[in-house]
Amino acid sequence: MPASTSPSYRITMRIKCVDDSFNLAALIAKIDDLGGSVHEIRTLESEINKTVLSVTVDNSGVQQTAALINAVASVSGVEVLSVVDETFEMHLAGKIEVRSKSALETRDALSMAYTPGVARVSMALAEKPELSFKYTIRRNMVAVVSDGSAVLGLGNIGPLGAMPVMEGKAVLFKEFGGVDAFPICVNTQNADEIVEIVRAIAPTFGGINLEDISAPRCFEIEERLKRELDIPVFHDDQHGTAAVVLAALISAAKIVGKEIGSMTAVVSGAGAAGVACSKTLMAAGIADVILCDTKGIIYKGRKEGMNAAKEWLAEHTNRQQVKGTLRDALKGADLFLGVSGPGLLKGEDLKVMASDAIVFALSNPNPEVMPEEAAPYVKVMATGRSDYPNQINNVLCFPGLFRGLFDSSAVTVTQEMVVAASKAIADCVSPEELSPDFIIPSVFNKAVAPAVAAAVAKVARDSGLTRK
Amino acid sequence: MPASTSPSYRITMRIKCVDDSFNLAALIAKIDDLGGSVHEIRTLESEINKTVLSVTVDNSGVQQTAALINAVASVSGVEVLSVVDETFEMHLAGKIEVRSKSALETRDALSMAYTPGVARVSMALAEKPELSFKYTIRRNMVAVVSDGSAVLGLGNIGPLGAMPVMEGKAVLFKEFGGVDAFPICVNTQNADEIVEIVRAIAPTFGGINLEDISAPRCFEIEERLKRELDIPVFHDDQHGTAAVVLAALISAAKIVGKEIGSMTAVVSGAGAAGVACSKTLMAAGIADVILCDTKGIIYKGRKEGMNAAKEWLAEHTNRQQVKGTLRDALKGADLFLGVSGPGLLKGEDLKVMASDAIVFALSNPNPEVMPEEAAPYVKVMATGRSDYPNQINNVLCFPGLFRGLFDSSAVTVTQEMVVAASKAIADCVSPEELSPDFIIPSVFNKAVAPAVAAAVAKVARDSGLTRK
Repeated sequence: MPASTSPSYRITMRIKCVDDSFNLAALIAKIDDLGGSVHEIRTLESEINKTVLSVTVDNSGVQQTAALINAVASVSGVEVLSVVDETFEMHLAGKIEVRSKSALETRDALSMAYTPGVARVSMALAEKPELSFKYTIRRNMVAVVSDGSAVLGLGNIGPLGAMPVMEGKAVLFKEFGGVDAFPICVNTQNADEIVEIVRAIAPTFGGINLEDISAPRCFEIEERLKRELDIPVFHDDQHGTAAVVLAALISAAKIVGKEIGSMTAVVSGAGAAGVACSKTLMAAGIADVILCDTKGIIYKGRKEGMNAAKEWLAEHTNRQQVKGTLRDALKGADLFLGVSGPGLLKGEDLKVMASDAIVFALSNPNPEVMPEEAAPYVKVMATGRSDYPNQINNVLCFPGLFRGLFDSSAVTVTQEMVVAASKAIADCVSPEELSPDFIIPSVFNKAVAPAVAAAVAKVARDSGLTRK
Repeated sequence: MPASTSPSYRITMRIKCVDDSFNLAALIAKIDDLGGSVHEIRTLESEINKTVLSVTVDNSGVQQTAALINAVASVSGVEVLSVVDETFEMHLAGKIEVRSKSALETRDALSMAYTPGVARVSMALAEKPELSFKYTIRRNMVAVVSDGSAVLGLGNIGPLGAMPVMEGKAVLFKEFGGVDAFPICVNTQNADEIVEIVRAIAPTFGGINLEDISAPRCFEIEERLKRELDIPVFHDDQHGTAAVVLAALISAAKIVGKEIGSMTAVVSGAGAAGVACSKTLMAAGIADVILCDTKGIIYKGRKEGMNAAKEWLAEHTNRQQVKGTLRDALKGADLFLGVSGPGLLKGEDLKVMASDAIVFALSNPNPEVMPEEAAPYVKVMATGRSDYPNQINNVLCFPGLFRGLFDSSAVTVTQEMVVAASKAIADCVSPEELSPDFIIPSVFNKAVAPAVAAAVAKVARDSGLTRK
């Protein structure tokens, strides 16, 4: 089976077709043969004996792309003039810009937005700091903070490698939630320093979104910042993932006809996502969770590879104190949640789960178990991928969540708000839509962010966790 | 003489005119009497016996405005429905926003701007850090960093008070230079901490603009950051001011027919601007500078109120080792440059200066000596104000300067680049325009920033101080 093509491996070739031997059908056939998928063909110039075409092709990897370019170049009558990698092209000079919200074309506007008028606003803020949430970008600006220690599935690639991801996050914040967001990538991975830096720059922002910071440092950083700052602090890899996982579980529970309170879950991965998902499942009332990491099941008294977060979970999960491997844990489980690594399980490993098993295999791009393999043994399957049904994608949560926090002037984010976000996401799937292949709304469903925002804002207001 | 009105004290009143006794001319006369200046009148609703007007008035201060509102409310037949302070209105939720540079409406775009496509860009940057200047916002993004310790003429009002100013700066960067800028206001005034914070967040930015940080900490912070970072670091209060002052002096020298090399200057104020202006005047070849602070003339061996920057200047300025007061220093000086405080001099104090004296009194909003008082004794006069001729405004420099730094991929800013910027600014005043009342281009002259950018980029390239 050839790997599927993706726009993330999209190239545009400018090709000159120099003589009569050129045949467009032959060219396209060649591209097809090599597994490429033609996205667009445009004629740029057309003269006698000379045609310049722009040919855009999706592929399945950089090696396939290189082979394809060579093959196209070897087609009779064809000269490849230039090749553009569309993904890199889209990143040229970065993906976001800073813009003035009003035009500044007159001397009058200048005297209001800058000196001398601005001085009055500055003095007002110096005297009443809470006005900063009314008269500065704090009203709607979140910092997307990363140290680049756990970027996507790429690992510890550092702050520069993290930048394109954080810029992308800022794009999503604005596109889906109307939230302004700015990336802050820091070149330290020391928890104390990160806390100090974020604390120091906090006057600029109305909220902090921690991103792609590896466990267990992320727990300490988040906890300390939540304590020290009077603005919401949210670690998306933890709570954003947990919110969307819980939303998917709410839907899946309806399909299998089980109550969440009667279910048990096995969580593979005790990093940021695994720990937070376990806690959120518990907050949602799940009967029990068994957490596994690379050393196997986590239980009270285990010595190997523990940290404070795992110790807490060892105390509060795994009621039967089961020991052993991930496969041992799966026996009788209703839900398998993978937030770990690719290919940890074979389809038939799932045979021991309870009937109507639910499997969320979220390792990206390659899940813990492939949907095709899992199919015979599960009732509901979800992944993190866009090319399978039921994509668990954090973008369903974070833009609406911060929209709700800002709308309500919330001073913090609570577990209750995260659960409310989950329910709002799940409610965006109508009873008519709900099916094993549709448990979670599309990321392009524009109703999701406002629903999440309203739910989060309501909890913030009802709990009195709002400013003024 | 009544104080002049300013759009920075602009209000809009919504007023209901309830009965026949209402008379618009009488209302306007009342506003005039109280020193207000009507900017705009609009009819919002017009029915029998009921008219709602929007009346926008510029005033000269908040007390005048309060008196005016009371007076309007007391006009027969008038009810004031609401009053909006236009300057605060313009600041609602802040002045800048973060936007995506391309639309993100399709799944394809999402796969390129975010996962999975972004991973390839991230890996490329992790492997080749210098690509961050090509594929991230570093290409065009400057951090406007302040601790709020010396904001405008307002003093140490802290990071929140500084925010509206830094947002305004970001607006100006974009408007005049096409440079993206983001405010970073930090809640520490410890030099070591500020250096650490800026060093830590540097992977996000292509340049650092320090702003409104008080002397002498600003010198150390700038120096250390310049040493530690591979991106340009620029303290605008120092070098931006110096660049525009030098530009004005270049023009003024033409008018008085003196060579800069034959002139002596008295600089009042040994803060950020005073120190940098002195150094830049020296770099431009001025014969001598005498620097004065609140303790009087700075000379070698002075004990009171010194710091490292002043010690250096004591060594390198004031060749005759004159001692005494600011007034003593003025004897025979060709240029007085005030970057200190309001009303330090009377007009007649300038009588002792050389013939065809040049006075730049830049304290804002109230200059060291008022132009009206200075007029009989000076040939060329400039201030920092927009309501007198010859406004010395940093916006003539910083947007074009960073445009040039980014265009040339400069790794640092040098004194030579600042001087080149000055010459470019001065060259934007044509021989026909040049007059004692026109020595510096308007801040709205769109030719200035590109000229500054080209001059700065040329020096960067010629000196080999560019990346790659």
